[in-house]
Amino acid sequence: MTLKGKLKIDSVLLEKQAIEELHDKSYYGRIKGDTLEISLPESAFLIYMGKIRVEFEEKEIGFEDFFLMASSLLKNFELLYIVYKDLRERGYYVQPGVTGFRVYPRGGHPGKTPAEFFVFVTSERIPLLLSQLRLHLETVGNLKKRLVVAIVDEESDITYYEVKKTSPSGTYVSGLRKGLSKASLLEDRVMVWDYDASLALQKDGFFGKPMDEGHLQLSLIEACYLLKKDILEIEDRNHMVLDFKMFAETASRIESDFMIKYAVYEKLRNEGLAPKTGFKFGTHFRVYKKIDDMKKLPHSDYLVHAVEQGHIFSLQQLSRAVRLANSVRKEMIYGTADSQVDFLIIGRMRL
Amino acid sequence: MTLKGKLKIDSVLLEKQAIEELHDKSYYGRIKGDTLEISLPESAFLIYMGKIRVEFEEKEIGFEDFFLMASSLLKNFELLYIVYKDLRERGYYVQPGVTGFRVYPRGGHPGKTPAEFFVFVTSERIPLLLSQLRLHLETVGNLKKRLVVAIVDEESDITYYEVKKTSPSGTYVSGLRKGLSKASLLEDRVMVWDYDASLALQKDGFFGKPMDEGHLQLSLIEACYLLKKDILEIEDRNHMVLDFKMFAETASRIESDFMIKYAVYEKLRNEGLAPKTGFKFGTHFRVYKKIDDMKKLPHSDYLVHAVEQGHIFSLQQLSRAVRLANSVRKEMIYGTADSQVDFLIIGRMRL
Repeated sequence: MTLKGKLKIDSVLLEKQAIEELHDKSYYGRIKGDTLEISLPESAFLIYMGKIRVEFEEKEIGFEDFFLMASSLLKNFELLYIVYKDLRERGYYVQPGVTGFRVYPRGGHPGKTPAEFFVFVTSERIPLLLSQLRLHLETVGNLKKRLVVAIVDEESDITYYEVKKTSPSGTYVSGLRKGLSKASLLEDRVMVWDYDASLALQKDGFFGKPMDEGHLQLSLIEACYLLKKDILEIEDRNHMVLDFKMFAETASRIESDFMIKYAVYEKLRNEGLAPKTGFKFGTHFRVYKKIDDMKKLPHSDYLVHAVEQGHIFSLQQLSRAVRLANSVRKEMIYGTADSQVDFLIIGRMRL
Repeated sequence: MTLKGKLKIDSVLLEKQAIEELHDKSYYGRIKGDTLEISLPESAFLIYMGKIRVEFEEKEIGFEDFFLMASSLLKNFELLYIVYKDLRERGYYVQPGVTGFRVYPRGGHPGKTPAEFFVFVTSERIPLLLSQLRLHLETVGNLKKRLVVAIVDEESDITYYEVKKTSPSGTYVSGLRKGLSKASLLEDRVMVWDYDASLALQKDGFFGKPMDEGHLQLSLIEACYLLKKDILEIEDRNHMVLDFKMFAETASRIESDFMIKYAVYEKLRNEGLAPKTGFKFGTHFRVYKKIDDMKKLPHSDYLVHAVEQGHIFSLQQLSRAVRLANSVRKEMIYGTADSQVDFLIIGRMRL
């Protein structure tokens, strides 16, 4: 039997009978007095399924016309519809909100279990502000739900990503003494000239890369860390000694985001992790949780990219980063720094 | 025996004996009258190898001091040295130039064979202009050599990429009649409502994605192509018919780089290729060379990203794109459009 409803500004109102048939049995819509109010994506889905018929200004409108009207009435209607339909067809109960959906766990439904996920729906074309993502995480976290971002691409394929706060840590500890050696800051990297110090930095701290026997190259980040820990003294090419502030200033002229990268690097080192450059993966760092034997280096565990607080994700780039990380069995983590360093882990999700 | 030389502004001049020992036997440097002139990277390498000793202002300078001086004298000296040393140690004969090296094929050397590669040396930190890359390609192409870009990362690891012009083509032909159907432009995608047309577009042209049975979603790019080919008529939500120009203008408001993407898409289609969105790979298109059976879709062959003429590559992003493409066994291609569409293929190279 097909139920009847009327299209209002941003919802459809269904007759009383729908409360029992659609709400009580299948968890569609919200009860409003004697009627059932259903959202536009729910309505389109129910029209498509042949469960309801909708009138507008006393005239019945079919799926095509309803879709065109809803698309004019509700921003991102198509995106919401595509994701709503996908979730329903995967067997989830879904409650629509303004920017996304509350989704119940498999086997759960309203009244039985709390919703497990909040699914935020967006398009690959819409840049995603880090601050907005944090706000969602906060809200969703307070409600003890998990945050899922559903990104609809231009061909209407959906990719689901779960976003979580994380505190990565490991068991790597470097054992280097203070005042180990001195090093030279060249154009945009640092060189250690002493044979023994080069060896120790590599073996006992996983720092640098040998340029040849006895000469070790350090990245600016590594050198800055070793300078701050008083392990290395650093001179410029004219043999002027640089303190931490001077070194950091020079490095920031070479790389504008140096201090953010540095803060993330230091935090990772402090948490027992060993970060090295992630250039080959297109990120700032690849990170090892544990290294037993420097000669048999394991695969790294995380790819970490440092971003500023005001960062805006291009979803195309986010997609590429997560895809690449997962294709080499690593997890993709974004690190941000202000008074403290925070990490977000973003992973593809198979719902 | 150690040969002696003197450091001049940007090279080292070696005594006559070096001509026979270093130039004639091992192809170092260039003969200048009675002396052998060698570049700074060559000099550092020969000092390190213990083959030459170098004086500056009547005093011998060791490897460390030479390195510091050379780093002050020659821009990117460290990068050039690192790459020079790597190539030599891999057994290649190398002739240094200003921005890179002419490299002889394995088994070849100056006088016997022409150089095979021109290796352009840069750092991950230096953005690479597409126009600069084209210029290199032109020059190197005129000399009938292959262009290699050596990118040195912050930890001095080198990744070699070969850059080539390419003209991708395939055997995919779509068979769709003119005036097939009409479709509606919604917010940022297009919907075909007719059951038979939806099926034909999918089956005979590899266009769109079914939203549900009988309704097909097209991307803006696909819709624009079908409009231009007179296969589809497109209306907006108020049933106003849009011509190609109007549609392209609307699409360009939604995606600022729409016309570049479109030009590349059209060229690919015209060359017998089937492009679909590459969003999951972080690029504009994934491209199929051949499709025998729409139900058993093969893996796509290329990832294609459309860029404007003034594009500046971030080497980190380039690295990520090529790495991801190769990890899923595809080739990474960049397409640009002005009066015509050109393609560059960039691949990791194992020297």
